[in-house]
Amino acid sequence: MDVLLRCINSAFFLSHDIRRDAEIHLVLQGAPNPPRTIRLVGSELKYLNPDERSTAALVRNALMQKIAAEERASPGFYVSARSYRDVLSLLPKGGQIVYLKENGKDVRDFEFEEDVTFVLGDDQDLTKEEEETLLQYDPKIVSLGPVSYHADHCITIVNNELDRRHKA
Amino acid sequence: MDVLLRCINSAFFLSHDIRRDAEIHLVLQGAPNPPRTIRLVGSELKYLNPDERSTAALVRNALMQKIAAEERASPGFYVSARSYRDVLSLLPKGGQIVYLKENGKDVRDFEFEEDVTFVLGDDQDLTKEEEETLLQYDPKIVSLGPVSYHADHCITIVNNELDRRHKA
Repeated sequence: MDVLLRCINSAFFLSHDIRRDAEIHLVLQGAPNPPRTIRLVGSELKYLNPDERSTAALVRNALMQKIAAEERASPGFYVSARSYRDVLSLLPKGGQIVYLKENGKDVRDFEFEEDVTFVLGDDQDLTKEEEETLLQYDPKIVSLGPVSYHADHCITIVNNELDRRHKA
Repeated sequence: MDVLLRCINSAFFLSHDIRRDAEIHLVLQGAPNPPRTIRLVGSELKYLNPDERSTAALVRNALMQKIAAEERASPGFYVSARSYRDVLSLLPKGGQIVYLKENGKDVRDFEFEEDVTFVLGDDQDLTKEEEETLLQYDPKIVSLGPVSYHADHCITIVNNELDRRHKA
């Protein structure tokens, strides 16, 4: 739970603003009802506060409820029973997919396209099977530095890199 | 509280390791017994888990207790009644002091010395008075990017930059 909330925080929070152009899919594969995917859409979010119990409650509810199609739990906050494989298959066609991995090309030398999706594991790496699924989408493999970071720290570093590109 | 725990997390946590060469001072100025300073020393830390209630409990205890000299609350985890001004005055002489601020020199072009201390506000900027105190130490003023980040994200970005330097 904590890692999810920290990833939401890293994906959306600026000092006095929310990243309206960001979107995150959190694929939850744990008990009791896997899979569950939570999708947060920056342009629609209201009142998001990662410290608030309400976000944790939304995530917890998503895990417990019986879900068919994707449902809106609150503004910008969607829940579905999509699997990791489903989420990949539903990404916009033609968008760039980046797999964050230690042995990839240095992010600082990498050319981002306008619409880019980053795929990363939580504090576990992707499993071999998950990696094979991802490789079917021909992702670019990109590294953030010489050491291995937690998922939420990866998101912060990527966002900083993108901020710098957009300034230029 | 959450911002403190996230700062600890950003300062020390790698994917499968703790940053043994890091140290953080958290200066708490809120009720009921300000000031309180919590100092964490990476080389001494054991069993630190930022998700654990135990870290939050240590911080909460530090706020409540009557404290004279600096006390060790657990391995690598020290508590004192030092103020912001005290903490600055006790930094090692000759070490480099960096003030993280939006209008500073770009961190990627900045030359770090071996022993460097970063000063940053929490989700509030430093007050005018705090800034004046800091400026007496002739800090270097450094910026992390074109937007303004939360304190814990600043720490993550700085650590990534230092990781890259140490690799080189």
